[in-house]
Formats: sequence, C-alpha cells, structure tokens
Amino acid sequence: MGPGPATPDAPIITFLTDFGLTDSYVAEMKAFVLRGCGNAILVDITHQIPRHDVLAGSIALQRAVAAFPAGTIHLAVVDPGVGTSRRLLAAVVNEQVVLCPDNGLITWAHTRYPAHVRELHTLKGSVVSPTFHGRDILAPAAARLARTGLLGEQLGSVLEPILLPERPAPPGARAGAIIHIDHFGNLTTNLGPATTPAGELLRVQAGKWRLPVLTTYGDVQAGQPLTLVGSGGLLEIAVREGSAAETVGLKVGDDVQLVE
Amino acid sequence: MGPGPATPDAPIITFLTDFGLTDSYVAEMKAFVLRGCGNAILVDITHQIPRHDVLAGSIALQRAVAAFPAGTIHLAVVDPGVGTSRRLLAAVVNEQVVLCPDNGLITWAHTRYPAHVRELHTLKGSVVSPTFHGRDILAPAAARLARTGLLGEQLGSVLEPILLPERPAPPGARAGAIIHIDHFGNLTTNLGPATTPAGELLRVQAGKWRLPVLTTYGDVQAGQPLTLVGSGGLLEIAVREGSAAETVGLKVGDDVQLVE
Amino acid sequence: MGPGPATPDAPIITFLTDFGLTDSYVAEMKAFVLRGCGNAILVDITHQIPRHDVLAGSIALQRAVAAFPAGTIHLAVVDPGVGTSRRLLAAVVNEQVVLCPDNGLITWAHTRYPAHVRELHTLKGSVVSPTFHGRDILAPAAARLARTGLLGEQLGSVLEPILLPERPAPPGARAGAIIHIDHFGNLTTNLGPATTPAGELLRVQAGKWRLPVLTTYGDVQAGQPLTLVGSGGLLEIAVREGSAAETVGLKVGDDVQLVE
Repeated sequence: MGPGPATPDAPIITFLTDFGLTDSYVAEMKAFVLRGCGNAILVDITHQIPRHDVLAGSIALQRAVAAFPAGTIHLAVVDPGVGTSRRLLAAVVNEQVVLCPDNGLITWAHTRYPAHVRELHTLKGSVVSPTFHGRDILAPAAARLARTGLLGEQLGSVLEPILLPERPAPPGARAGAIIHIDHFGNLTTNLGPATTPAGELLRVQAGKWRLPVLTTYGDVQAGQPLTLVGSGGLLEIAVREGSAAETVGLKVGDDVQLVE
Repeated sequence: MGPGPATPDAPIITFLTDFGLTDSYVAEMKAFVLRGCGNAILVDITHQIPRHDVLAGSIALQRAVAAFPAGTIHLAVVDPGVGTSRRLLAAVVNEQVVLCPDNGLITWAHTRYPAHVRELHTLKGSVVSPTFHGRDILAPAAARLARTGLLGEQLGSVLEPILLPERPAPPGARAGAIIHIDHFGNLTTNLGPATTPAGELLRVQAGKWRLPVLTTYGDVQAGQPLTLVGSGGLLEIAVREGSAAETVGLKVGDDVQLVE
Repeated sequence: MGPGPATPDAPIITFLTDFGLTDSYVAEMKAFVLRGCGNAILVDITHQIPRHDVLAGSIALQRAVAAFPAGTIHLAVVDPGVGTSRRLLAAVVNEQVVLCPDNGLITWAHTRYPAHVRELHTLKGSVVSPTFHGRDILAPAAARLARTGLLGEQLGSVLEPILLPERPAPPGARAGAIIHIDHFGNLTTNLGPATTPAGELLRVQAGKWRLPVLTTYGDVQAGQPLTLVGSGGLLEIAVREGSAAETVGLKVGDDVQLVE
C-alpha cells in the first residue's frame, strides 16, 4: 500500500432525493452526470427522504454541506413541484454548490452560511422530460460545472430563495422543536446548547422529561435518556443503547424547551 | 473549482440485482470487479428488484441502457436459475454491454435496439461457486472487458436470447398493461402515445378511469390523476402530489387501453 | 471501448455500518475520507446491519475481507460502545486493513487469518464528536492510510482484540449453529462440509429436517430444501426458488448438526 498517485482530485458530486432505492431513477441521474463528466466521484447522501418532504431534505442537505470539502457539487431533488412553474436554483454555500428546485431545500444550509443564489435555467437545446428535471437539467448542469467550473449562460439573475419557516432557534433561543428522528431513534432538536448567566448548562424539557445536557452515552446507564450535543452541533435527545423516540415518545415538530 | 484533469475516462460498470442491501453480496461482486479493473466507476442501478422477478429486472435494465453512455458495462443478476443449466450471455445493446443470465433480462433492452448476443463461457481455470455466478463469472468478465476491451475466448456462439412475453405493445398498439409501479405510485404502461386519424391524442382507459394524456403534473390540481409521457417515453398514470397506485387502484399486469 | 488508462489504481475504502440509509451519516464518513484522500474508490458493504448487532457485522465483514483485493481499507462501524471507554483498533487481515471499534467486529476475520492488531489513537489536534467516531476518527485515519500508507503515531501498542464467542466450529466440528439468514432466506451455518471415515459427506440435521449436502439448487426440484457449500465456504441450507427460513423454520442462533 504505497502512496497514491499524484493526479488532481476528481470532482465530487452528491445525490440527495426522495426517490427511494427500488427504481432506476437515481442511476439515471448518475448516468447523465457521467455523460458530461466521466471522472466524477459520485456519493449518495440519502434517497430515503420521505416523499415530497422538503424540510427533511433540507436538514440532511445541511449536514452534507457541513461535511463535504470545498468544491463539492450537491444535487438535491425533493421536488413536489416538478411540472409546475417552480424555479431551479444554483447556490454557493460553504464553498460548495447546491443545485436544486427553489422550494426550501436550502433553508438550513442557506441560513447558516453566506449564500449566493441564482436562478438556474435550462441549457438551450436540451431535451427535457417535464417530470424529471433532476436527470434532464440538474445532472447535466452538475457535470458541466464539474468539468468546466462554470455554468455560463445557464445562470439567471440573483434569486431570493424560498425558505421554510424554521422553528425559532436564533442563537440563545430557549424554545425549539424536534426536527429529525434518526435511524437509532435519536431526537435532533433545532437548539444549540445554552447556559444560565451563572454559566450552567440549561437542561432540556421534552414532553414530561427534563434532561441534563451531558457529553456522551457513557455518562448514563444503558436504557437511560440524556441530552447531548450531537455530531451536527445541535442538542439531541438520546437513550444509551436504546431509542429516544420510543422512550421519550416525541415526534418531528414537537416542542422542546431549554430550562434551568 | 477549476476544470478537471484531462485523464481518459474510467470505465463505468453498473449493478442491477435482486440481492437486497442487507448482505455483502453486492459488495463481493464489486470487489471482484475491482480485482480485475482497479479504476472502474461503479454505479448501482437497484438491488431491490423483487426476488427472482426477471420481468421487473428487465424493465429497470431497459431504462439504464437508455440512460448510460456508450461503453458502459451492465452486470444484471436476477437469476432464479443459478445452479441449473441456464446459460450466461453477453449482449451489445445501444453501444453498451450487458452481462447476465439468459432468462429474459434483456427482453426490453433487446427489443428496442439492434442487439448482438453471444453466449458467455466461464473463463478457463477460474474457481466458481455453483450459487454465485454474478461474483465468480460475470464480475471478472466485466473487469476483463473494461480493462482490455475484449472477452476473447469467453465468448461463445451467437445466441437467440430467451425473451419474456412482452404484453402486446408494438408501435400503434392500443391494448397494453401496467408494467411497473414506482416509488411514488406512478403506474408505467407499456404503451406509447398515439393519436386518432384526426391527430388527437388518444386517452387512456385504466380500470374505471378514462384519462386524457397531458404534459405534466401542473396540468391538474393536487390529488387529481392524469396520464403523461413519462421520463422513459411510455405512457404513465400519475396523481399530482399523490399516488396513482392508490387512487386508480391498478397493479402490475392489469390491462390498460387507448381509447378515443 | 479501448483499454483503460495505465494510471495506478486508486485506493479502495469500504464502509460497513448499522447506520441504515435514511440519514446523512454514511455520506458524512465518506466526506471525511474524501477530504483526506480525494481519489479513493468508495464501496458500501452494507449499512443495514441490525442496530448494535456486532456479531452480524463481524460475519459480513469476514465475507468482505475474503473478497476484496490486497490493500483495501475497511471502515466497520457497529459501535454500541461509542461514548464509553471502548478502544478503537487497526487490524491487518488478509493483506487488508480493518479500522473499527474493539468490540468483536473482527472476530471471524481475525480467527481465519493471521492478524496483526494494534490500538488506534485519535490524531492529536483533531476535533472529535463524542458520538461519531466513525466520521471523526476512523474516516480521517482511513484517508491518511490510503494516501500515505502509514498511520504513524496514531498506532498504539499491540492489542489482544475482544472476540465474540464463536459457536463451536473448529475444523471437523459436527455441532454448529445458524449464523446468518440472507435476503433470499438462505440459512448460513458456521460449519464447513465434513465426511465420514469412509469418505461420505455428512448430512445436516436442522430442526426436523435431515438434508444431504448437494452441489447446487439444480440438484433438487423447485420448492425443495437442500444443503450446499455456500459462496462463503460454509454449509448453507437453501430452498430452490424459495426461502429456507420459511420452509425449515430456523433462526439465527439455532443449532444444526452434522450427522451420518
């Protein structure tokens, strides 16, 4: 296992959809990317965003944008409005580019970074299915951007993107909500940690539970709930070796509060 | 994000199976490809073809063959006959190569393109599990083909491939069937659009529904059914922001008709 | 389709987790690998190991280690102990490297090959979430190893890894157990084939069934059970074109015996 070759890195293109994994749709988008950029590294974020759930897609996209290196191109297609007059956009966020419908998908990514957002037009002369813009517009645009670094005349004017109503969580907010339940039953909130004037960490009130903010699972016994700062930087309610969703009994959208 | 490197494109190899995603089987096929061709770009079509459902596999394969660029190699393994005397084949279809068991998997791909099909033999001296030809015969053949451009002595004589009975849908057919239900509940038929002598688009009779052929979801209200030409070129019954499978209540194999 | 370019092969990095496919976690690990090694080939083994099921993870990992070429780096993250004092390890097994928590994940891989196992330390100065060591410690280590061939000061002292109690199956063992049920309902045992002193293959007693060891599915009629040597080299109970799990009615952990 010697050092790898000194070739320049290939462009990274990611895929985030609500297409599921039973159809050929995701592969067709990848095929259209590879037609235009044969050396791209293709990475799936997830294809199991609940159908048409733009908010869930935006939260997964925000985590991806936080994790990937500069230059990554993200194709995000949760697109209940395909076939209507909704616009497409290209956003530069955290030194990466997101190509997606203008429906709120960049809500979280957009509000955490300075973002430059422009409308994305169809390339002249391209054949476009009225129901699959992810394959016929976004994938070729991603390939072109990866290959040339430019979108040229496909870029329209600056656009004020549609943003979903984020539950109130400015820095210091004490009232928030559950925004995601993961595969392990961890409950992600939209709140960051906060302290009392005396510097003590506020606790989390979630349903009938009032939980201290600890560091990690090992701070409680197996089966016990706790709150910690999750790997995405937000407060997360967890149960060691168990499911907080089951134990605590909350769902996406339910209120949580920071309390003394 | 400057232009990418000017290296020649790596070969693309795709994977379509009924193996599911819980076992290591798909990864083992990829491992055997990478043993023989270390720079291949590996793309999953789907691994959730229903077990042993060759017809469903053939329909997904047809869409993949329509989407990928020339030179792509497709490994398609829906193989209820593994461990019997069924043959393997190599087919050149749409400037791509499909390697698969001879059981009907190329039915749709084959009938839409001129295809050259030959039997594929086991490479002499290779160790072959009697139950995993995808890994032990097809994957190394794909790697060899990707690396050298040739299959050499593994190619047998020209073969008349087994074809599944396609529901009658020659150009102009008016009687067809539902051939696929996708993740969104869209019902794909095996019929293309057709017109009356006067040039009016025929409508689709599906169960008790008689639906005009429109262009896209935006042509109806949310929750309403319509027919449109899907992204694969076939007539598709859809419900805007809903599931046609639920609303219209048809299943794979059910009849549909073009009517005035 | 000419011969591919003569560039050196890119490093292969695989991913095996119990993270499921609905969250961005797997992609975040890949992002951190690509940050450090931009030309890696990323291959998923599976992400559907049942939550916290280290034994199931170890069995899939063993198959992967048997299949991939020398130099492959495997990231295996089934990690119920994240956030406790459990250690991480780096193991050289079958000319490949496994990076994982020290919890039994390399049980099967380790006992089939000579393995060199050392503790893996966190790289000094790195920022580590207390709940996502797969992303924050293992992924960067994999990238570093892929790029430089070395782990340097991250490698600790030689470690005697935790091994799970394997059900008794030394060479020649006649008492074993079902260790895995695959997507098709095939029942994998932890026993290899064995013969009587007279050279006759022993049969398999599984529940009320006593099954001869045959070669492949074609040796029985559709719907009939048989035992064969599976593609991983272990005895496997199968039903031609059916599910042995349903027909034979056993589950993981149930006893099987070799009998005359």
